[in-house]
Amino acid sequence: MSGIDELVQANAQYAQSFPGPLPGPPKRQVAIVTCMDARLDIFRALGLEIGDAHVIRNAGGIPTPDVLRSLAISQRELGTREVMVMHHTQCGMTDFDDGAFRADLARESGQEPDWDVPGFSDAAADTVRCVELVRECAWLPHRAHVRGFVFDVATGSVTEV
Amino acid sequence: MSGIDELVQANAQYAQSFPGPLPGPPKRQVAIVTCMDARLDIFRALGLEIGDAHVIRNAGGIPTPDVLRSLAISQRELGTREVMVMHHTQCGMTDFDDGAFRADLARESGQEPDWDVPGFSDAAADTVRCVELVRECAWLPHRAHVRGFVFDVATGSVTEV
Repeated sequence: MSGIDELVQANAQYAQSFPGPLPGPPKRQVAIVTCMDARLDIFRALGLEIGDAHVIRNAGGIPTPDVLRSLAISQRELGTREVMVMHHTQCGMTDFDDGAFRADLARESGQEPDWDVPGFSDAAADTVRCVELVRECAWLPHRAHVRGFVFDVATGSVTEV
Repeated sequence: MSGIDELVQANAQYAQSFPGPLPGPPKRQVAIVTCMDARLDIFRALGLEIGDAHVIRNAGGIPTPDVLRSLAISQRELGTREVMVMHHTQCGMTDFDDGAFRADLARESGQEPDWDVPGFSDAAADTVRCVELVRECAWLPHRAHVRGFVFDVATGSVTEV
């Protein structure tokens, strides 16, 4: 059985106690931007119930143009008002050399990646930078409540930066 | 108290029973690409434990260049081997006019968005399209197990397409 098969099997049990249809607009009017990291169970870590908040995740939890697109839809179409940007300790983007990575991809595949998403040396400092990126985004009507946090994968605690 | 304050307060309790440090590479070697929608509690819906799988989420669960960047890092740096692409019913990207949305943003902000991520009329059909996009991505070394699903937000069930 593949990894995906195991997830689908687990879903059959989950669906038995699913609460049913809820509105699309997030109840708490919060959008969370965070990393894809497997140790971040965002719903449990932040006490979220189904329907509470948008969760946007990529490698690093970095507000790339695609994340800003998602936030623009979140705020303008689905009513969110706050943005929580959350990096974490022991992130794979720590000291990640994106330029070398892109060069490897281009050499092996013959196709040049068009992104430029550098790694970072300090999760807290990069969170501050990412909060600023969101605050500066003119496509977002609600930028008064953009806050940055770091999740500690050793303790499960979040700390505001 | 703001929405984010409530989440941070909930985290204090969560951290009390956090299992502690785990390895970064996902144990089940699966990466999940899905929508930011608030009704998708991916860990619970798929029976995931902390450390099991990467979770990449944007508006629509669409493999944009930023998602392909994240998948490339997931596979090449952190050892995932399977990709689960999951759309859902009642998605905000259903019949979404991205061109009109971008025109609104450009007119209001004076800054032209550079993405092109159209909405879709049929979640299952678009899932098939998105699975193909991942399978065609030359930056990903592991494309033999890319599968597509639709999550039903009324029942909590996933169905393979």
